[in-house]
Amino acid sequence: MSALKDLQRVAGEHVVKLGDDIFAPRHMKDFVVSAPEGVEILAAAFPTETAEVAAILRWCNDNRVPVTPQGGLTGVVGGAAPIAPCVVVSLERMRAIEEIDAAAATMTVQAGATLETVQNAADEAGFFFPLDLGGRGAAQIGGNASTNAGGNRVLRYGMMRDLVLGLEAVLADGTVVTSLNKMLKNNTGYDLKQLFIGAEGTLGIITRLVLKLYPKPASQCTALVALNGFDDALALLGRLKSGLGGALSAFELMWPDFYRVGTTALDRTPPIAEGCALYVLTDMLGADPAADSERFETIIAGAAEAGIVVDAVIAKSSAQARALWSIRDCPGEFPRAQHWPQLGFDVSVPIGDMGAFVEEARGLLTSRWPKAQALFFGHIADSNLHISVKLDEHVGSEHEIDDLIYAAVGAWRGSISAEHGIGLAKREYLHFSRSDAELALMRRIKAALDPNGILNPGKVI
Amino acid sequence: MSALKDLQRVAGEHVVKLGDDIFAPRHMKDFVVSAPEGVEILAAAFPTETAEVAAILRWCNDNRVPVTPQGGLTGVVGGAAPIAPCVVVSLERMRAIEEIDAAAATMTVQAGATLETVQNAADEAGFFFPLDLGGRGAAQIGGNASTNAGGNRVLRYGMMRDLVLGLEAVLADGTVVTSLNKMLKNNTGYDLKQLFIGAEGTLGIITRLVLKLYPKPASQCTALVALNGFDDALALLGRLKSGLGGALSAFELMWPDFYRVGTTALDRTPPIAEGCALYVLTDMLGADPAADSERFETIIAGAAEAGIVVDAVIAKSSAQARALWSIRDCPGEFPRAQHWPQLGFDVSVPIGDMGAFVEEARGLLTSRWPKAQALFFGHIADSNLHISVKLDEHVGSEHEIDDLIYAAVGAWRGSISAEHGIGLAKREYLHFSRSDAELALMRRIKAALDPNGILNPGKVI
Repeated sequence: MSALKDLQRVAGEHVVKLGDDIFAPRHMKDFVVSAPEGVEILAAAFPTETAEVAAILRWCNDNRVPVTPQGGLTGVVGGAAPIAPCVVVSLERMRAIEEIDAAAATMTVQAGATLETVQNAADEAGFFFPLDLGGRGAAQIGGNASTNAGGNRVLRYGMMRDLVLGLEAVLADGTVVTSLNKMLKNNTGYDLKQLFIGAEGTLGIITRLVLKLYPKPASQCTALVALNGFDDALALLGRLKSGLGGALSAFELMWPDFYRVGTTALDRTPPIAEGCALYVLTDMLGADPAADSERFETIIAGAAEAGIVVDAVIAKSSAQARALWSIRDCPGEFPRAQHWPQLGFDVSVPIGDMGAFVEEARGLLTSRWPKAQALFFGHIADSNLHISVKLDEHVGSEHEIDDLIYAAVGAWRGSISAEHGIGLAKREYLHFSRSDAELALMRRIKAALDPNGILNPGKVI
Repeated sequence: MSALKDLQRVAGEHVVKLGDDIFAPRHMKDFVVSAPEGVEILAAAFPTETAEVAAILRWCNDNRVPVTPQGGLTGVVGGAAPIAPCVVVSLERMRAIEEIDAAAATMTVQAGATLETVQNAADEAGFFFPLDLGGRGAAQIGGNASTNAGGNRVLRYGMMRDLVLGLEAVLADGTVVTSLNKMLKNNTGYDLKQLFIGAEGTLGIITRLVLKLYPKPASQCTALVALNGFDDALALLGRLKSGLGGALSAFELMWPDFYRVGTTALDRTPPIAEGCALYVLTDMLGADPAADSERFETIIAGAAEAGIVVDAVIAKSSAQARALWSIRDCPGEFPRAQHWPQLGFDVSVPIGDMGAFVEEARGLLTSRWPKAQALFFGHIADSNLHISVKLDEHVGSEHEIDDLIYAAVGAWRGSISAEHGIGLAKREYLHFSRSDAELALMRRIKAALDPNGILNPGKVI
């Protein structure tokens, strides 16, 4: 305790809370995963500037005290849950929008600003920041970078990695590495920002970022489409990709069980009747409202003529578009359709294999647990599939279901985490997606940047 | 020599050439920069598969023999020029297109395939591989990745880093790290491919890659536009970016001296008369031939009505488009306009500052050397500016000109290398674009991956 008083002295009393001043419950859990029982938080630090983050890390490194970096705690794999006695470092006070450079179309922002704050600031400046996900109100932009967040517009704009031009990070030993690059092209040695993006706080703490801004889209076209099978989904995707020239922003496949639960949960007459093999929610973000909707409808009509599309509903207003999207966004309403509690998966398999993978995964589940209820859906144009297995007396433990699904993903050379990361929850399955040589190289990088292993120990690797 | 016999034994006689069997001249120089006088090539290795690359590196690492990886030798900063007695490892025999996965829109290819081979293979399979640069016939795709190549379509499709989904690399100690990911989303720990892209062969040798393919563009619209000043260039760029929804593929600014030399070199009546403040060559790659050209022309007409555009020529055929592009592509013809020999620069500055930077750089040059002839042009939408200074009796040494330009770039917080890399030629100027903390972190990464410093020593850092 007297040692921690020293941390408080070094970083500032206004920054470091100790003992009863720590409100521990708010630091013990992300959106899904809790810290193990009995883990102690030694200190909770709320730095207000990069130099304070540096002072905290330097002290923790010198004293071999583990550090758990925390953003908005909207993750789902326990990446921000403490697992050992540690100092929690929350970025929530570092939330300033420092600059919007209209000519460069960039925003420089502190890591603790929420995603929604960033989106709104871009909007007010006449720009568009395309990353979007359900936790936007609480998720912090630094956390979005640390987890390489995805979401619903990856097809059009990429993941968070593609939206970061530069960043500043503090290494385990307190070194501040400032690479606040604003330029699209910069081949001056190693691209250091890549080390910290997606590293889930194990290689450094991101303190500031330069984000890439886009022009606001002028049009949105949305359709719900029914198909006879997976091959037709690939054919439709190909037509949309080549016909829309990069404006295609979503292609969300929904298998029939998901579609039924979604419309049931929303207590709504399905826009297209049940009974089709597959449903797709697709979306374009364009620049030319009049021409775009004609182009979009022509492609879908052409696919219908070719027998690829069985039925389609095209949104005629943004309210209709939202109504169609709400079916895809129904997982928040699973409890209302009695699909609850559930175990969720976020995996990738190469897109050509996805139809077969779904059939195999479903077969493995039901041959082991004949009454298992599993829903399949996802951003398939990004190779990304979500699976939701209802947890009830008909299935085994979460661990058994994890074992089954992740082994199948490994067998198909897929990824056990498409966009959620590894954190705590998926660490033991990482070997299904990464070879021994890859894991050894990750450990080499970890050892080089954090030789004492103080940064978010027990996560990722 | 007997030691090198041992290398030959380990890696195979068909792979390793020694002594008089080495044709040294072809390994001593990239497109511009030569190895220092008297450098000896101990062996030249031409592996045919990854295992042979691994065997070579393991042997070199055990024996502390430097390795110079070589691709097509089309670089311009000496990244592939040997600087010490070394084993040259050329990837030219590893040139197979291993797979095109049409559903995933990916190509798996060995590192020694030329860019042109990759482009053609994509085309034959009904796809488009967008990276393009003048050296396409000789440049190897592994070298494109190692240097994070750019070119003329970065605005639309990104740099090489954005086109690589996965790769395989051999580390200095011979470890093969295979990460041939085909999926757009894969958040399973550190994104290891980023270590090798842009590292110029100092962290590993790339042996295979998974490339992202795109649908073939269905339309191209090209215009040459004259403007009154830099602010109008930014205004026009903003209109094109928001009006074309991501289909804008080039925005190449040409200052008047460049435009004059370009049209002179081509011996052609300028499509737009000389005397304007700036010229822009702009290009879109779209998906809808009929609608695209109308959309493109409407934006330019609107900018003319708003007084942003002074004059414009819109290509009515692909032959006309090529003719307009040939002005921008004139640097190959500089000798014909007596702008030769010349010293070229490839720098970035934040786009809003670029107009002022050009004026300052020109002022610095002419106040030091009043009769200096300097041409300015570049991919300004990517923040990328090229400068060409004629080397004649009116200016100082190359070194003096380098010192002047790079110091100015540093003062404007720019990048001393936008797309060409650091190699040998820019190493002593790296500190203008990278802080001590960044350089120290690069060295930490280098030491972790190549503790004996055998891989391309003396390059980058």
